[in-house]
Order: sequence, then structure tokens, then C-alpha cells
Amino acid sequence: MLLSQDAYKSRAQSTAAILKRNEPVVYDELMTSSAPALNTAQRDVYRENGFLMLPDLFSADEVTGLYDEMQQMRGDFTATGRAEVIAEPGSGEVRSIFDVHKLNALFANLVRDPRVLNVAREILGSEVYIHQSRINYKPGFTGKEFYWHSDFETWHTEDGMPAMRALSCSILLTDNSDLNGPLMLIPGSHRHFISCLGETPEDNYKKSLKKQEAGVPDDFLLRYLSDLGGIKSCTGKAGSVVFFDCNTMHGSNGNITPYPRSNLFFVYNSVENQLQAPTDGLAPRPGYIAVRDDVNALEPEPFVMA
Amino acid sequence: MLLSQDAYKSRAQSTAAILKRNEPVVYDELMTSSAPALNTAQRDVYRENGFLMLPDLFSADEVTGLYDEMQQMRGDFTATGRAEVIAEPGSGEVRSIFDVHKLNALFANLVRDPRVLNVAREILGSEVYIHQSRINYKPGFTGKEFYWHSDFETWHTEDGMPAMRALSCSILLTDNSDLNGPLMLIPGSHRHFISCLGETPEDNYKKSLKKQEAGVPDDFLLRYLSDLGGIKSCTGKAGSVVFFDCNTMHGSNGNITPYPRSNLFFVYNSVENQLQAPTDGLAPRPGYIAVRDDVNALEPEPFVMA
Repeated sequence: MLLSQDAYKSRAQSTAAILKRNEPVVYDELMTSSAPALNTAQRDVYRENGFLMLPDLFSADEVTGLYDEMQQMRGDFTATGRAEVIAEPGSGEVRSIFDVHKLNALFANLVRDPRVLNVAREILGSEVYIHQSRINYKPGFTGKEFYWHSDFETWHTEDGMPAMRALSCSILLTDNSDLNGPLMLIPGSHRHFISCLGETPEDNYKKSLKKQEAGVPDDFLLRYLSDLGGIKSCTGKAGSVVFFDCNTMHGSNGNITPYPRSNLFFVYNSVENQLQAPTDGLAPRPGYIAVRDDVNALEPEPFVMA
Repeated sequence: MLLSQDAYKSRAQSTAAILKRNEPVVYDELMTSSAPALNTAQRDVYRENGFLMLPDLFSADEVTGLYDEMQQMRGDFTATGRAEVIAEPGSGEVRSIFDVHKLNALFANLVRDPRVLNVAREILGSEVYIHQSRINYKPGFTGKEFYWHSDFETWHTEDGMPAMRALSCSILLTDNSDLNGPLMLIPGSHRHFISCLGETPEDNYKKSLKKQEAGVPDDFLLRYLSDLGGIKSCTGKAGSVVFFDCNTMHGSNGNITPYPRSNLFFVYNSVENQLQAPTDGLAPRPGYIAVRDDVNALEPEPFVMA
């Protein structure tokens, strides 16, 4: 990919910029032979806003099982020094664990569940694979903010993801209220590419997963997008699921309440949108952040709690 | 005040503790000769929850004038190096300006306005004076959290305030939404004194106004209070006012939205509750944080925007 042909060049200019999105948000091809996972109204909401919440997609029993598994993983992985484990700035508590769909059998099954997988296949109009998976714990009392960003800006620049044909699926494993730092999204922001200032430091991911410093959108453009589309927080009960486009601007405030805000994130990427070389001669990020070696189409298989 | 007689000893024990409140929350004596500022239902809400919100107490014109004045002060005081100006950790933006009722004529008038002053006089059942005043800017994008605390815990320990007979009046100068880090309070927490661990470092206020490290309540007790009373955020339009008891546990999350959450705070203390020596032989904090030299009863005088 030559820079001169790059429609989504970022971190290379002397000024921030706002660029038009080229790709569709929702593809027309339906990949599922059975009843579609989304109805027309839901597809329209996703196309318009760049995200969609499906309340109570997982049952209370499933949530209990998944939550326990997540806590078990947290215990098992604390103080292992593994690269997949990211600590909160300050408190050192576990902030995120990456690659959970490879590290854990239950989550490996979950990414194939038709309730989530088929939504991804329908929206992206193709077979899909997991580009990245993680748990974000956001602990009570000490959970820190995630600043505004477009995932695609990073995945394009640092991972060489060619086009906006990926989405995140966030499964709420605790209740997400207005108070404990819920995901905030800017409706409509997915239609604009915000090109950011600044060069990417070497091994940027080692810092950026705690606190983003490259790929940070400009204040003026954030204000513009927010004034245009508003800001919507994704609050809901555990078991609800939010799907959002790879280019939807999002972030979340910190959490001083005693109640953790813990969510699973699966990033589905179209098999037709596989990673190329990162821009600007950057070294590819490790496989636990950006999968390159396992890009076969996921086969739907209903998730069954053991 | 001897420690052995101190009903609200804090930062001196080897374990955190929860103690019963001794003083009334709302006093029976009505200090106003004219129509009372609060009706019975409002007094009951304040007594029960430890706080009360009065929506739209100030008009849109008054809000505009006060907001402009606040911004003017911010500009005038940035980079002056004055002690009253507290910077945000990290960004260095103005987080708070203290003593605004002495530094600014408009705010000096505002503290006497019957709409706020008479509420304080009625609840505290006596004449009152200003113990502390400040603007909290909480800027957009970079506004950091204020961690949970009881004001009284600090004012008692560091300022020698004898009893729980003071309140804060917070005038919203921007809209406070669920998204921009609104004040959160724990209903009912004002009935319990949370004695905190740890000794007070010398000149603690120099750090604690940015980030509190002494007087931090225990996680377990915060969880207990929250489970008992819930957590309520004080959202509302600019011009609304929140009154809360000096011992109501409160805090706020950070603010990454583009929209600042700026509020005025006036702390009214009963003239019968004047400061004594701080506990543990601490030096008194400076007058811009804890007034000792101007404790005459405030005379009500309607606020008129110039």
C-alpha cells in the first residue's frame, strides 16, 4: 500500500483533517441462510448511527457463567507478566486481557455463536474472522478513562487494515450504568475519517493500550462531530450487546463507583479485508493485538455454557 | 479539642471505621422572617438523602452573566502562579479557583442572594458565613475525577470544624449531564461518619486539591454505603443548584466529552460552628481554603446582575 494511494492517511500531516468515508457501512449481501440476525430497522439504525445495541442477547445464566470465567481469568493472569495483560495506569489493577478467544475455550466458542457472529457476517457482507479480542475490566474505584478514538485509525495505520470493513462486538458482563464509565459513541462519526497529528512512536502499543498518545483526534474536530451527532452512552444490563463500526468515534470516562464495568470485546474483520503491511514502515504489532495467522472464516456454532 | 473527646476522629486509627452522626441534619429554627426558602417536602428530602436539587433557581440571563464572569476569571488567573488557582493533574488546565467570594465582586454578592443564603440559614438553623468558596471548572476533554470524600472529614481533621453544621451549595454554570462528570452523591451517607486510615502529611492541601491521598474512605465502606443508599448523579441545566450536607459522601468521574462541567461552590458554615485548632497538631490551612478571619453572619441581599 503506497502512501500516495492511501485514502486514510493519518499521523503524517502537519494539520488534522476530516475525510470522507469510502466504504459502505452495512453491506447488502446476507450471509446467513437461516432467518437474518438483524431486521431492516436494526440494519437502518446501525447504518445511520454507526452502532446498535441489542438488549438482553445473553441470558442471566450465560452472563453468570461468562462473568465467573472472566474473573477466573483475571485471577489466573494477574502477576504472570504476560504481554496479553494490560495494567491500569496508577493502580496496577488488570485493565484488559487480550487474545481471550485463543487463551480461553469458553470465549473461543462464544465468538462463533450465531447471535453475535451472524450479526457481523450480515453487516460486513462476507465471512469474517477475529482480528482482536479482549476483556476490558474497568474495575470499580480506580477504572481509568479510555480517550476518544476511532479503532480504524489505529488498525489502518499500525496494522495495515485496508478498509472500513470490520466491527466491534461488546458483550456487557456487568450492568453498564450512566455512573460506571459506560461506552460513549458519537452517532454519525463513522462517516468521517479523522486524520490525526503526530508520528507513531516505535512499539506504540506498549503505551497506547494504557493511555493513547498517538492517533488522538483533534479537540476541534471532536467538538464538531459531537455537536453534529451528539454523544450516546451505551447503558444496559449485563447480557446486552453493542455492535459498532470500526470507524465510530468512541471512548469512556473513568469509574470511581464501587461497581466494575466489565465488557468482552470481539473484533470481527471481513476475510476480504485482511491486514497488509502497516503504513510508514512500522513493524507489525504482535499477534495478540492484531491477528495475522488465523484468518479463516468462522463457522457459526451455537454457544453452550459447560 | 482533645482527641480523646473527639467524636469524629479520623486518620489516626489502624483500621477504618464507621461512626454514627451526632448532629441534626436539618434544624428546626427557621431563620427567615419572610416566606421560607424551602417547603416541608424539600426539607424532608434534604434530611433523608443529605442533599437537594433545586432546578432552574437562576435565570438564563443570570447564568450567562455568571458564566462569562467565570471565564473572565479563568483567563485573568491562568499563569499568575496564585495559590488560589489549582491546575488539573496532567494537562495543567485550570481545575479550580478558590476564594472567589473575596476575589470577585459578582460572586461576593451572589453568596448573599436569598435564594441560596436563606436555604443555608434554614437548614443550619442559624446565621451563617462562608467557610470556603470556589469554582470547579472540570474542562472538556481533560477534566479529571474527584474521588469520593466527605468534606466534613477533611474540614474536621485539617480545619478543626467542630460539628456537622455546614453545607455546600453548588450552582451549575454549564449543563451537567450524565456524560460530563456530574456530581455523584450517596443518599443517606451523611448519617455515618467514615473514619479514614492514614496520617495527614504536612501541607496536605497542596496535593489534596488536585488528587486526594489522605482522608480517602475505605473501599469496603464505600461499597457498603453505595449498596445501602445507591448513587445519585446531580444532572440538570445550568442555573440549577444542589445543596448538600457537609458529611454527604460525594465525588465525580472525569470528563472526556468536549463539554465542560463548570460549577460554583459556596460552603456555608453556622456561626455557632466556627473553626478551632486542627487535630493532631496540624498547622491551619490557608485562609483561601478555610476562612478564619471573616466569620460574621451574612446579611441577605438580592443578587442583581450588573
